Amino acid sequence: MIRAGIIGALGYGGGELVRLLSGHPGVELTYLSSELEKPLRMSDVLPNLRGFLDAECEVYDTKTAIERCDAIFVAQHAGWAAKRAREFLDAGLRVVDLSADFRLRSPQEYEKWYGEAHPSPELIKEAVYGLPELYRDQIKQTKLVANPGCYPTGAILAMAPLLKERLIDPDTIVVDSKSGVSGAGRMGIKLDFHFPELNEGVKAYAVGAHRHTPEIEQELGRIAGRPVTISFTPHLIPVTRGILTTAYAGLISGDRTTEELVRMYREFYRTSPFVVVLDADEYPATKATFGGNYCHIGLKVDARTNRVVVLSALDNLVKGMAGQAVQNMNLMFGLDERIALNRPGVFP
Amino acid sequence: MIRAGIIGALGYGGGELVRLLSGHPGVELTYLSSELEKPLRMSDVLPNLRGFLDAECEVYDTKTAIERCDAIFVAQHAGWAAKRAREFLDAGLRVVDLSADFRLRSPQEYEKWYGEAHPSPELIKEAVYGLPELYRDQIKQTKLVANPGCYPTGAILAMAPLLKERLIDPDTIVVDSKSGVSGAGRMGIKLDFHFPELNEGVKAYAVGAHRHTPEIEQELGRIAGRPVTISFTPHLIPVTRGILTTAYAGLISGDRTTEELVRMYREFYRTSPFVVVLDADEYPATKATFGGNYCHIGLKVDARTNRVVVLSALDNLVKGMAGQAVQNMNLMFGLDERIALNRPGVFP
Amino acid sequence: MIRAGIIGALGYGGGELVRLLSGHPGVELTYLSSELEKPLRMSDVLPNLRGFLDAECEVYDTKTAIERCDAIFVAQHAGWAAKRAREFLDAGLRVVDLSADFRLRSPQEYEKWYGEAHPSPELIKEAVYGLPELYRDQIKQTKLVANPGCYPTGAILAMAPLLKERLIDPDTIVVDSKSGVSGAGRMGIKLDFHFPELNEGVKAYAVGAHRHTPEIEQELGRIAGRPVTISFTPHLIPVTRGILTTAYAGLISGDRTTEELVRMYREFYRTSPFVVVLDADEYPATKATFGGNYCHIGLKVDARTNRVVVLSALDNLVKGMAGQAVQNMNLMFGLDERIALNRPGVFP
Amino acid sequence: MIRAGIIGALGYGGGELVRLLSGHPGVELTYLSSELEKPLRMSDVLPNLRGFLDAECEVYDTKTAIERCDAIFVAQHAGWAAKRAREFLDAGLRVVDLSADFRLRSPQEYEKWYGEAHPSPELIKEAVYGLPELYRDQIKQTKLVANPGCYPTGAILAMAPLLKERLIDPDTIVVDSKSGVSGAGRMGIKLDFHFPELNEGVKAYAVGAHRHTPEIEQELGRIAGRPVTISFTPHLIPVTRGILTTAYAGLISGDRTTEELVRMYREFYRTSPFVVVLDADEYPATKATFGGNYCHIGLKVDARTNRVVVLSALDNLVKGMAGQAVQNMNLMFGLDERIALNRPGVFP
Repeated sequence: MIRAGIIGALGYGGGELVRLLSGHPGVELTYLSSELEKPLRMSDVLPNLRGFLDAECEVYDTKTAIERCDAIFVAQHAGWAAKRAREFLDAGLRVVDLSADFRLRSPQEYEKWYGEAHPSPELIKEAVYGLPELYRDQIKQTKLVANPGCYPTGAILAMAPLLKERLIDPDTIVVDSKSGVSGAGRMGIKLDFHFPELNEGVKAYAVGAHRHTPEIEQELGRIAGRPVTISFTPHLIPVTRGILTTAYAGLISGDRTTEELVRMYREFYRTSPFVVVLDADEYPATKATFGGNYCHIGLKVDARTNRVVVLSALDNLVKGMAGQAVQNMNLMFGLDERIALNRPGVFP
Repeated sequence: MIRAGIIGALGYGGGELVRLLSGHPGVELTYLSSELEKPLRMSDVLPNLRGFLDAECEVYDTKTAIERCDAIFVAQHAGWAAKRAREFLDAGLRVVDLSADFRLRSPQEYEKWYGEAHPSPELIKEAVYGLPELYRDQIKQTKLVANPGCYPTGAILAMAPLLKERLIDPDTIVVDSKSGVSGAGRMGIKLDFHFPELNEGVKAYAVGAHRHTPEIEQELGRIAGRPVTISFTPHLIPVTRGILTTAYAGLISGDRTTEELVRMYREFYRTSPFVVVLDADEYPATKATFGGNYCHIGLKVDARTNRVVVLSALDNLVKGMAGQAVQNMNLMFGLDERIALNRPGVFP
Repeated sequence: MIRAGIIGALGYGGGELVRLLSGHPGVELTYLSSELEKPLRMSDVLPNLRGFLDAECEVYDTKTAIERCDAIFVAQHAGWAAKRAREFLDAGLRVVDLSADFRLRSPQEYEKWYGEAHPSPELIKEAVYGLPELYRDQIKQTKLVANPGCYPTGAILAMAPLLKERLIDPDTIVVDSKSGVSGAGRMGIKLDFHFPELNEGVKAYAVGAHRHTPEIEQELGRIAGRPVTISFTPHLIPVTRGILTTAYAGLISGDRTTEELVRMYREFYRTSPFVVVLDADEYPATKATFGGNYCHIGLKVDARTNRVVVLSALDNLVKGMAGQAVQNMNLMFGLDERIALNRPGVFP
Repeated sequence: MIRAGIIGALGYGGGELVRLLSGHPGVELTYLSSELEKPLRMSDVLPNLRGFLDAECEVYDTKTAIERCDAIFVAQHAGWAAKRAREFLDAGLRVVDLSADFRLRSPQEYEKWYGEAHPSPELIKEAVYGLPELYRDQIKQTKLVANPGCYPTGAILAMAPLLKERLIDPDTIVVDSKSGVSGAGRMGIKLDFHFPELNEGVKAYAVGAHRHTPEIEQELGRIAGRPVTISFTPHLIPVTRGILTTAYAGLISGDRTTEELVRMYREFYRTSPFVVVLDADEYPATKATFGGNYCHIGLKVDARTNRVVVLSALDNLVKGMAGQAVQNMNLMFGLDERIALNRPGVFP
């Protein structure tokens, strides 16, 4: 039985970890905590837990975390995990960090996008980027996983096969993403997310400047074997969950059909149970992934422009966050990555 | 292992049955069917099943249903089950009917509200109204369960304790319900449910004339030990799932406090794991029950008017439909009613 | 030309006043202000004004307000107008206050519901409750209008004809209202109104304790000629604008038909251009009133329960707030009450 | 006084024409019609007209249309106007066609994308593409206007200045659009637009194959002075109104700043009252244009990729349809194009 703990259990990511892990037959939730002044009943904050879980969220304490846990999920603000992961690792815990602290392999890139020096650059080398579809074997070996961002998960899964097969020109990639509002988290209350300001509307934000950009570029570049620079535009749409990514790239060779690429994608993701490649002429809908750990991918070769359009849909709090974290934990402990996750999303 | 079948597997209720039953360790889904011209792949119709379930929905056939199933869930239009349940019962199957066919104990009432004579009045006596919180013991004994309507589930659970304890005047009950649109089903496409007509709006329908009215009245009357006539107004709100019921009644004795009634409700539902009675001054939100089988209840004694207001929230497709059907099946087969259902809803 | 000013021009109510008054041929907007530290461009805050209005919202100053205005709209927090209306009135301005300061005729009731003594009880007598459908003549004579609350507008218009004609028992009134989130205003950002918490959900709040309750009771009582105490439950639904009110009452005489009452309502509102009484078996939808100053009313006699159900729909920011304020201003200045308001809502 | 008629007055576009034209001081609505079996009261179909307009929608008849109208708006299905415009023009009427019949200048392109030969290719030459920001002078001279599609309006306004100034490579244009569901019209009820299927979700459709593609390409090509082929992906988001277009293109010269391009756009649209160019670092939101005739444009030079991202927001039923049609009518009759349109949108 894996004794698992969550730091930051009251946010949207923490709540999803509780929901998913409580259905995991090999996991015992031994430590729910947050940086609080006094303990809170979990179900007073996360009302879906009422009647299901009668536990407290404890005031965070490192010593207790180490004593009680074999695995620790860190769902804290930027910089938190970078400063404390060492202690957990030294104590023998396996760590899945849901923040961006260990995602970028270059401390320089981190400083450029996050505005301060990385607090523990030496740890970056020990971390594995937790996208099982690309790094399954490394994840199995590591004690520190950098759980990917929600946008990067969708964008990288959409583009990886094309770059791996050298079918597209890496300099032509445009990634246009549409996200639900839960991506802003629960703590980030502001006028932008006030219901009347957001409902019945759509807008872009952080155009060409979102912090997930270098993460996408790093991973696409590792696949391409050369630096990749992309245009990335995130949008806010009036839904709670879901990210749809529409990615465009110029095909190097002009004679591929949609059907061929669908087959190629299916081969690429053959061993990845949570990536579903749709038939030609089918396009993914975020609604079909709501609450589940699946990423649906559809694509189209546009012969008129010699571009390929790849669309991916996922639930930003599951495959884009907590579900992927559980998938990573499964791999780190030598378990089947599907445990606790092989349930369909909630439709409609 | 219970071999379970679904007739009408492609609607919203059918889809939820598949989602819930596929997580049931004691059930094997042996028959997915619908009245189709040719088989369809389940996941082509219910896109949340992509990657999870690679099964076909078969063309319905009675003989096959009987051969393959120990339990059958009927999610068909009005009248279907009334005409065919006999065959299933004679063959030894246990039947959970999700339609209204066996909910009303009086064939006269059925004819009055449904506009035609009941096709099998003799079967009504064998059926048990499948609200486990009221009829747990009878459900355990029966082979035919009439699964309650979504509105009645919320209204009856809200009012039962007060009527049982003779605290309210049965002639003063007003039930005002707000429902998500999935209650209209998937087949009922019409202008009323066209997205632009419904989004950013709220309206009532079938005022004083909804077919769930006699069902609520029958059950409240059984508890009260006398006929009960209520005002019932259903409303459509722009959400997919969820019913919030706000029920009002005049208190017979004026000196009860909210806290006392909360205690009384908790005692009443002490053995009902899916009913959560909130603290005084807390009110239920449908969002907290999304995707789960819980019914949250909050209440308030209004000393100014000497009325009590009771609010209940549930997911109309789960506790109001498929989840309750699974709960009933568990009871009919002597299992713990929580199996496959003791998972939290999806929040936010 | 009426020189009109707005205090609190950057909130939702203020913005609607600008939208409506800018289409008024007899009004010049001479003073847009708010309690700011420095001026702001209106269109930087209210983005619908971009390209339409190139004006500043000034730092509020009483002297300037008085110099520049013949009419002043006060859209400020509770207590503000009570403290300052005297100055405006003494300077000869006509005042429409959109807060609750002058709505309750009893200072005791004010203190009971608002928790502090009324700052200027002597002014209450000068104020007229600004519901033109009931007080058209008095509004024409006054210099101080207390603009009604959004919930009271819908509830009073729904119930007034029945009480006037002594058709219902005043002790049986239940008012169940469903409101869009803009009613919370723009300044009231909190977790409750954070998009992911509210979207795809419905809940009640302030059950039996909302501050609009005494306002509804006062006005219904004036019509009934005796004290009226009601059950009032407000609900939040995931729409931006719109209030649907479902009101229930016991009929005194049991032989009225829906058609008779529809005729009676039409007669009652014959001279009220913004109240639309629907045919029997039609029920109002808030969507049909979005952005317009209309209140749609539908009703149903329920012979089974001997109750009548009356439903009203309106846009809480227009007929429930800014539109009604303009209607009042028109009357105060001897103009046709329809000016600037006789435009249809925006559908769909 | 212009006597104006609408053919297809009961759809969303027709309804918006009624709303806008009824506020036009120089227009009398003399003919409201549709291809009906019997007349319908307008307000029975378009509920926002209740209390405002007591007119019938007549059974369409060509002779009556010609007798009663100086200007005719045709909001019918594809092919209708192409077959009948000749009669109107011969009778001296001015025609604004809201369908795609006269938008494509090449009958071959029409046949390729619409699947049948153009019914009246000789009329194409007489038609002017009704985008006032590009063709203001020609619109003033013509008797037949092809009112642009909703997506093309947003895409062309976003890209025109860059192509005009030869700042981008026309072969690199990617147009990613997000549309509200009212674009599907009112007659097109199908499962795709059933509320529960669409709410809380986002998806693409007609990837690389939408019929608005050749229209965008034609107009961008005319500005560029050479053929332009684009990638165009429309998406459905769960809002009723609004199109946000995110357009990407490679800059030819790498040293432009966002501020320079903002200035250039403002100069380009200096005489266009309904195009609002936002400051650098501001991005448009569809919500700010809801119900109004404005198109908001924001842009960003991304030095990292040497691309420019241009975003435009508009209301698909107003600037993308009926508002633009009124703007065109104004120009055709020598009026100020702003009449009946210079009102802000409804916010929030």
